[in-house]
Amino acid sequence: MAGSIFGNIFRISTWGESHGKGIGVVVDGCPAGLSIDEEYIQKFLDRRKPGQSQFTTQRSEADQVKIMSGVFEGKTTGTPIAMMIENTSQRSGDYGDIAYTYRPGHADYGFDAKYGFRDYRGGGRSSGRETAARVAAGAIAIKILEELGISITTYVSSVGNIEIDDAKFDREEISKNMLYMPDHDAYVKAEEYLLKMKQELDSVGAVVKCKVNGVKPGVGEPVFDKMDARLAQAIMSIGAVKSVEIGDGKEAARLNGSVNNDGFIMEDGRVAKKTNHSGGILGGITDGSEIIITAAFKPTPSIYQKQKTVNNKFEDVNIEIKGRHDPIVAPRAVVVVESMTAITILDEMLMNLSSRMDYIKMIYGN
Amino acid sequence: MAGSIFGNIFRISTWGESHGKGIGVVVDGCPAGLSIDEEYIQKFLDRRKPGQSQFTTQRSEADQVKIMSGVFEGKTTGTPIAMMIENTSQRSGDYGDIAYTYRPGHADYGFDAKYGFRDYRGGGRSSGRETAARVAAGAIAIKILEELGISITTYVSSVGNIEIDDAKFDREEISKNMLYMPDHDAYVKAEEYLLKMKQELDSVGAVVKCKVNGVKPGVGEPVFDKMDARLAQAIMSIGAVKSVEIGDGKEAARLNGSVNNDGFIMEDGRVAKKTNHSGGILGGITDGSEIIITAAFKPTPSIYQKQKTVNNKFEDVNIEIKGRHDPIVAPRAVVVVESMTAITILDEMLMNLSSRMDYIKMIYGN
Amino acid sequence: MAGSIFGNIFRISTWGESHGKGIGVVVDGCPAGLSIDEEYIQKFLDRRKPGQSQFTTQRSEADQVKIMSGVFEGKTTGTPIAMMIENTSQRSGDYGDIAYTYRPGHADYGFDAKYGFRDYRGGGRSSGRETAARVAAGAIAIKILEELGISITTYVSSVGNIEIDDAKFDREEISKNMLYMPDHDAYVKAEEYLLKMKQELDSVGAVVKCKVNGVKPGVGEPVFDKMDARLAQAIMSIGAVKSVEIGDGKEAARLNGSVNNDGFIMEDGRVAKKTNHSGGILGGITDGSEIIITAAFKPTPSIYQKQKTVNNKFEDVNIEIKGRHDPIVAPRAVVVVESMTAITILDEMLMNLSSRMDYIKMIYGN
Amino acid sequence: MAGSIFGNIFRISTWGESHGKGIGVVVDGCPAGLSIDEEYIQKFLDRRKPGQSQFTTQRSEADQVKIMSGVFEGKTTGTPIAMMIENTSQRSGDYGDIAYTYRPGHADYGFDAKYGFRDYRGGGRSSGRETAARVAAGAIAIKILEELGISITTYVSSVGNIEIDDAKFDREEISKNMLYMPDHDAYVKAEEYLLKMKQELDSVGAVVKCKVNGVKPGVGEPVFDKMDARLAQAIMSIGAVKSVEIGDGKEAARLNGSVNNDGFIMEDGRVAKKTNHSGGILGGITDGSEIIITAAFKPTPSIYQKQKTVNNKFEDVNIEIKGRHDPIVAPRAVVVVESMTAITILDEMLMNLSSRMDYIKMIYGN
Repeated sequence: MAGSIFGNIFRISTWGESHGKGIGVVVDGCPAGLSIDEEYIQKFLDRRKPGQSQFTTQRSEADQVKIMSGVFEGKTTGTPIAMMIENTSQRSGDYGDIAYTYRPGHADYGFDAKYGFRDYRGGGRSSGRETAARVAAGAIAIKILEELGISITTYVSSVGNIEIDDAKFDREEISKNMLYMPDHDAYVKAEEYLLKMKQELDSVGAVVKCKVNGVKPGVGEPVFDKMDARLAQAIMSIGAVKSVEIGDGKEAARLNGSVNNDGFIMEDGRVAKKTNHSGGILGGITDGSEIIITAAFKPTPSIYQKQKTVNNKFEDVNIEIKGRHDPIVAPRAVVVVESMTAITILDEMLMNLSSRMDYIKMIYGN
Repeated sequence: MAGSIFGNIFRISTWGESHGKGIGVVVDGCPAGLSIDEEYIQKFLDRRKPGQSQFTTQRSEADQVKIMSGVFEGKTTGTPIAMMIENTSQRSGDYGDIAYTYRPGHADYGFDAKYGFRDYRGGGRSSGRETAARVAAGAIAIKILEELGISITTYVSSVGNIEIDDAKFDREEISKNMLYMPDHDAYVKAEEYLLKMKQELDSVGAVVKCKVNGVKPGVGEPVFDKMDARLAQAIMSIGAVKSVEIGDGKEAARLNGSVNNDGFIMEDGRVAKKTNHSGGILGGITDGSEIIITAAFKPTPSIYQKQKTVNNKFEDVNIEIKGRHDPIVAPRAVVVVESMTAITILDEMLMNLSSRMDYIKMIYGN
Repeated sequence: MAGSIFGNIFRISTWGESHGKGIGVVVDGCPAGLSIDEEYIQKFLDRRKPGQSQFTTQRSEADQVKIMSGVFEGKTTGTPIAMMIENTSQRSGDYGDIAYTYRPGHADYGFDAKYGFRDYRGGGRSSGRETAARVAAGAIAIKILEELGISITTYVSSVGNIEIDDAKFDREEISKNMLYMPDHDAYVKAEEYLLKMKQELDSVGAVVKCKVNGVKPGVGEPVFDKMDARLAQAIMSIGAVKSVEIGDGKEAARLNGSVNNDGFIMEDGRVAKKTNHSGGILGGITDGSEIIITAAFKPTPSIYQKQKTVNNKFEDVNIEIKGRHDPIVAPRAVVVVESMTAITILDEMLMNLSSRMDYIKMIYGN
Repeated sequence: MAGSIFGNIFRISTWGESHGKGIGVVVDGCPAGLSIDEEYIQKFLDRRKPGQSQFTTQRSEADQVKIMSGVFEGKTTGTPIAMMIENTSQRSGDYGDIAYTYRPGHADYGFDAKYGFRDYRGGGRSSGRETAARVAAGAIAIKILEELGISITTYVSSVGNIEIDDAKFDREEISKNMLYMPDHDAYVKAEEYLLKMKQELDSVGAVVKCKVNGVKPGVGEPVFDKMDARLAQAIMSIGAVKSVEIGDGKEAARLNGSVNNDGFIMEDGRVAKKTNHSGGILGGITDGSEIIITAAFKPTPSIYQKQKTVNNKFEDVNIEIKGRHDPIVAPRAVVVVESMTAITILDEMLMNLSSRMDYIKMIYGN
């Protein structure tokens, strides 16, 4: 059934294959009166554009976004915003093995088992390219959040076993290096490691962290649509993500309650917390402190080593993957994590508009 | 907005507060012709019943489920199945501090910020008691999966820093000890640790693992409704869960592609995998191997130590939580994780029914 | 799949069979801070209670509603409101023919074809009794609308060929006669006609009109979720309804644009209309004038005459329906139409909260 | 909130404004393995193309559809099918009055009241042009229904007061005349009437009928998602529709049960009905006989006469609408009604796949 739609009120519907005519997204439910244009959206797309460093694919995609509807005289109209990125490098050539052979670590076998066949060109619908559509939609969500005083910082916190040192955290550094790491020393080591792995025809996993500031307390729904639950879906739906953590995440399982509980305190006349083990969410509802999400990305499954696998005639075969592939997924995924986070938080904020009679009377009352 | 509904086709809607008249669930979308009765459902509820050990609250709830609709002559009719558990121990007494003070680690402050006030009795809607309704619905999902040859094993894999030894894994042991651990030696150590923490008026975190066997390859939707994405939402929506992992989870971020990729092989005429780092899901679609989900639970936030916090007049105060509380959440949550897993996998399987013209022709063709 | 859930934000989930343990509804998404109690809800249920006149069944159901959750200290908490009406007259006796024979004009055959079997007792899930759950939910929606200055008037406008005379419209009269007609003379004729048809063991169709005042202009979504489109679903989902009209309805097809167009005019400083052919909705969005909905109900399919039909062994047979049945559906359905209208309009109003950046800033801005 | 998405399993998301860059639709949930191409879709779009007769606008739109995704080697892949129709006649000129003045019978005022402003060019999002996107999606649904042995016939049954004579019904005639009427004599009269009204600068209402054959009994959900309820939403969501009827529709309100009940009979070993007052649906579930839907269209609101109205400064003004407008909506809407009917019936059929354990075992069993 329909599985390419996300969101309850700010709802996005993505489409497109890696090597088809293009990819795109329809954003239905964007409030009217927001100023956006293609140039603004493009900046976000450029953050995940391939060919930016030696660790990202050299495929020369322009990834030029076009706004097709829903914006009039520079402002959103409240009706669906369709955005499209035409594929300019549709490889017409031979896909060889990939058409008939199941690449390890990829969804090829699953697609064939599910649908009976698949568009095998460049991964088709399961290509990471699909996430560009999410970024276009995310850019809009980020703009709205900004207007409400909310900011998001997203970065790579570890590459393989190389972790950043929180004491050296430098927000400015993130956009200065090609791995989006906020610690220059860690970046240098990570770069060295990556080059080595690339030479060994191997790939590398990494961790991405996303921190959101400015969300007021009281946002999120108590049971299944908890803020953290929906963030978990949003982030886990990004290809290659294998874990999602909120606040201390898995580490919380090792702690005692006396440590893990964040005592509330009054600070400048507002409710604050001494610590933030919870990562800004308690019982699915924001507590006003920084929201912290951590996503672990597996190493790129496409590697240049010869691998054993099977084909669609159910024969054991070897596969050698050609083409250009990033040896690491995470850096280009930073903006995707940020986008999905923004979309989810905005959607929860819009859902929350109907939570109280007094909010409703503010809009409809006389 | 509506946040107590989960599922697309097999859809559950839960209701109820900890100390109100009762709690319940409506299951809409259960296929007709399944044999179930109250006795069957009750067995699952008994697995999360309090008062079963020294590590679970001594509150004497009967937790007797009643099926109110949707079952006729022992079989589901295809119409909504309403189930209800009346609260028998509605404490009429004094809730004291809890009514006005925000317990650290709890959603009290968030509820007040969101709704303006809250039903503070025993945690109200944010009480763990809400999960009993999920278990009643989960029991039905588990029954359907069983009829389709799918089995689920769920257990506690670590308590604080004490982890089970996979080499000692004994499935039979799980139901023999009060912590639902599959390794007797680990259980003994964990029990000792828990007693010590209980004496220190503290609580403990833990990890729960859930393994699902028998799901065919090809189930799951490619983009936002990926099998792992929806499992992540389902599991993260359980109170106290702070991380969700699939397969190797966070560890995958440390690995190289050459290790993390699971090569496909032919085995007994079927596609299999040499390893299962992926945890049975690739690109959001099942690959036919065991589905592995890991959930980390934070320590119980209700501890008997005096804690600093604020009240609803925004004053710094101390709080001492009374009543009975489990020093560890995870053991009673084992059946909740299993339930949410079953509900999600079943829902994805039902969603998948419409994925191919040949499936549709099997049902409607002449 | 799930088909017993209605609404996007104010979402209701109904359950229950005519002769099972009870019927009920869970309202998920009701804003916090609304004052309601059982006594208030009960008044609405009493409007559709059977046994009130010679034209409604004499079955003595108490139809006592219980609020099970979501209300604390007299106010809605924002969490799901479960309401239940236990069946007190579960007929244990013999259902005879009905168990195996398909009643003409009923859903018996459809249920068997769909599900393989059915709960045949008193119509099971397809019984009109299901609508009591909608009325309980509708009472809440009506209360919210009232607090926002919106009022609804619903009545029977024709019985068979006997139509009310709009010139004699008397709002007070509606609640004075057993047919909920606003024209006493028409009521007298309708009563006479009904008695005659009852003697002839026959039943009668009727038309219900619903008028809503006070909804501001600008509510409704432009395309598929048009205000009138969702009202059409809501009203057509009531058993026995065979047509839904907005404003002039079918008559509009006979008119010319010069007549049918309602010219806008300024009146007391506000935009008004000279006429209201549109019934308060243009392009799916309210125009600020009275919303007018007309629903046609077919005659009660259960009649006492012998009828030809088939049984579940696919044999031609005769059927004689026993038990007590209203000779007319519409009077008891008046409150059901009002309820579904209120639920839909409220839901559209809540959907509309997120339509503009300035609304969102009113709630979240500093 | 999101209001441009329709369907539960076969889900369509439309976008685009009358005079923007284009319009389009994303179909998410189309089963894999269906053969379609642009040429096939185009045939349906050509049925609603303007400029086909003197009763449709002379605007020369090519309305060429492009399939952007979801089709590979001529077959649907199961992933989203994006289709786009670029606007070729974006009028750059002066919109004059329309930008600031509220056209009677149009949604202009509602849009401004809802969103604060609107894309006024050619009606923007509320233009009938939006329905072209529905037709592209409908063409796919119709193809699937055809493969399952289901056929649909749609036509204009009356124009103003001129009704077809059922005795003269000629299916072949429908596509032969410009008004899609199945009775040549009625067509001749209707044409004459339309020409007269056109000369008088006026417009005309009409009625469209849609008949569906081949849907098996047992399709449809019992309560809110009744087949007829969702058809009512689908059809009422088409601009200018003011009533939806099923079977005898409003006429049923005048009948007695002894007449209106359709007795079941056995015919050629299958359950059939002597009559079909119900229009193929009982209790929201198909009964195997012809599904009959009737939609009344109001006269085109854009007429060339001078009309009184107000502008967005809330002043009383006169308006004279320029440009080219059909004097009648219905003929071009025939294919839109057919499309929305097909989409709804298909979606209900897909929803029904999960209604029985035996269906599920057919797909997943061993």
